[in-house]
Amino acid sequence: MRPFRFHITARDGQARTGRLQTAHGVIETPAFVPVATWAAVQVLSAADLQRAGAQVLITNAYHLHLQPGGTVIRDLGGLHTFMGWSGPIMIDSGGFQIFSLGAGRTQGVGKVGTGSSGKRRKNEFPKTNRVRPLVRVDEDGAEFISYLDGSRYRFTPENVVEASLDLGADLIMALDECTSPLHSYERTRESLARTHRWALRALDVFRRLAPEGRALFGIVQGGDYEDLRRESSRFIGGLDFDGVAVGGSLGQSKADIGQVLKWTVPGLPEGKPRHLLGIGWVEDVLTAVSLGIDLQDCVAPTLLARTGTFLHKREKRFRLRIRNREHRRADRPVEEDCTCPTCRTCSRAYLRHLFMAGEPLAVHLASVHNLYFMETLMASLRKAIRERRLARWIEDLLTKGSLGLTKP
Amino acid sequence: MRPFRFHITARDGQARTGRLQTAHGVIETPAFVPVATWAAVQVLSAADLQRAGAQVLITNAYHLHLQPGGTVIRDLGGLHTFMGWSGPIMIDSGGFQIFSLGAGRTQGVGKVGTGSSGKRRKNEFPKTNRVRPLVRVDEDGAEFISYLDGSRYRFTPENVVEASLDLGADLIMALDECTSPLHSYERTRESLARTHRWALRALDVFRRLAPEGRALFGIVQGGDYEDLRRESSRFIGGLDFDGVAVGGSLGQSKADIGQVLKWTVPGLPEGKPRHLLGIGWVEDVLTAVSLGIDLQDCVAPTLLARTGTFLHKREKRFRLRIRNREHRRADRPVEEDCTCPTCRTCSRAYLRHLFMAGEPLAVHLASVHNLYFMETLMASLRKAIRERRLARWIEDLLTKGSLGLTKP
Repeated sequence: MRPFRFHITARDGQARTGRLQTAHGVIETPAFVPVATWAAVQVLSAADLQRAGAQVLITNAYHLHLQPGGTVIRDLGGLHTFMGWSGPIMIDSGGFQIFSLGAGRTQGVGKVGTGSSGKRRKNEFPKTNRVRPLVRVDEDGAEFISYLDGSRYRFTPENVVEASLDLGADLIMALDECTSPLHSYERTRESLARTHRWALRALDVFRRLAPEGRALFGIVQGGDYEDLRRESSRFIGGLDFDGVAVGGSLGQSKADIGQVLKWTVPGLPEGKPRHLLGIGWVEDVLTAVSLGIDLQDCVAPTLLARTGTFLHKREKRFRLRIRNREHRRADRPVEEDCTCPTCRTCSRAYLRHLFMAGEPLAVHLASVHNLYFMETLMASLRKAIRERRLARWIEDLLTKGSLGLTKP
Repeated sequence: MRPFRFHITARDGQARTGRLQTAHGVIETPAFVPVATWAAVQVLSAADLQRAGAQVLITNAYHLHLQPGGTVIRDLGGLHTFMGWSGPIMIDSGGFQIFSLGAGRTQGVGKVGTGSSGKRRKNEFPKTNRVRPLVRVDEDGAEFISYLDGSRYRFTPENVVEASLDLGADLIMALDECTSPLHSYERTRESLARTHRWALRALDVFRRLAPEGRALFGIVQGGDYEDLRRESSRFIGGLDFDGVAVGGSLGQSKADIGQVLKWTVPGLPEGKPRHLLGIGWVEDVLTAVSLGIDLQDCVAPTLLARTGTFLHKREKRFRLRIRNREHRRADRPVEEDCTCPTCRTCSRAYLRHLFMAGEPLAVHLASVHNLYFMETLMASLRKAIRERRLARWIEDLLTKGSLGLTKP
């Protein structure tokens, strides 16, 4: 088994490129991590992912516990065999589900503080808070109530590490408690202390059980409170983790993401890989990479694809809406210089037609393009860092759409 | 432009193999024709279809008129360019929609006479017949009311041929009136006479306008009335069509399909290709090929895929339901000897998991397998006919599941 190793290959400001070696191959960082919650990336097969240049996937211990159940995957030879993916696999711990099935559910908010009714202030909960949480957290861990059949199961820092090892994941997230952007300072501080105690417990069991080549990531929390983020970053960064992830509430709006990272990253050890959990829209990637993040996972490529939105380097917010009437007779591909199978074979007119007709092939073709776009973006960012011109490159992209869209 | 040509290469009883030459390549018959109503086969890309061995697709003049509109496709270079499919393309005329948006809608029935409330007898309509038809038929043609925006448009035998030629289709169906299995003898007879008058009009405009290499198919109707089917078969078979299609109501149950074909096929000219419209479940294919049918289109492979049903040569009615609990831990592929990408890379357990988790990739993987299955079935049938052992081969398949599932 090749050991887990990370080394930095180039630097430009706070940004860096690196090589992350796992038992299932090397990840060139900064890397985008497609989300395979249920051991599949929506409409993309393992072959599609490989063709697009995906280096690593992230799956979820909570979801796979529900369906098909961890022992099923273990007995079938682990996640790699199960889903036919031979590259590295990262696994999230269920910490985000403590939020999304708890406060996220009762408060009706997402990670960046806005729910269906828009932006809210601290402790200002929506009126329809009769929704019951599907999770209860105590010092030992979290008890989830299945939304499928009402059954209960307990996640602890220890059993999450054990289950993740059983599944054969390469990069494992420790169990954390993800707080809500609407939680008070007091509540966030108490939760953070617990996340830190859980980190120690996770680390303890991981060091006892993990075979060589596996890596455990500790998770920094602290909401959008500067002192808590700094404290968490120093605490988690100081422990014997193989990598560090930045999780949880990143403020009231997207603009706050950079702010939270500016408080967090300086406390982290230089030599360990840094993962930003669940944040990876194009603008966020530019921000995070510039601030020294190495890995980011996000559902954006397939989420956008479902609504007929194609990533595009010259469109506002990098989004081209294929349903717009202007594409009805457009003979050209989404991006002239893109080498993805969709752009090589389909006109905008055909893609628009498939979305208008509701053909499921449409979402597949859009997902393929959007993932190629992200992988190409990451390759371009790595190149710009190596050539020490990241800031200028980002400036060019934002002003001129100069992303060199050729296959990484 | 290579001319349209069909010649029979082998015979076994009433069954035959043939080579159908079109401007876009040769079709080895008997052939299965995947349904690309909206210029796409559900979740399968042109590349997927090609890999599976699909030789020809059937699209629909009615649907493409609605979305994106015929002139859009014509101005973009025709259907082949539009959908990225270089093989032959067949196009249906909208005759089936005269039924499905008319009597099929108001009577709540499908082509084989059973609706949501099961089998019905002639003239016995469901009580909820307040549903308005979305089509009105007169001698000139059919006026459709769009279910999208209420707009009206008239299809005539002439303009359907013109539109189909404009779209660049290779094999064109004449406009017919498809009757309901619940229609009386009188009503069916009157409708048939009109279909025959329309056939003459379609033929007339096709002979004037069609460039070399295109083919027009006349459609035999007559419901499940023996004398009408025999009459229609002689009438359509006697005209100057390039091929003949069997359409319309094929009786009250699946068992009647063979009966209707036994009345129809003897009247058809030997030297012309015979297409069976919209019928192509595995059992139907065995029946139809045995009775001398050369081409069949059907949505079965993708329709079954959507419900987690995999075609399988050794299962009852050739269907394996992957959601069944017995597959939860099954490490083996759906079919051990199948060479499709799904069987080569996925275990039953993984496929079941994807369906249980509702991952859209599941339907794609099932569609790929089901189409491979159909293409392999057709290749095996062609081989059995060439070797003059079709009846024995079918018997073996039905008793022992001996379909040689290797890539055609």
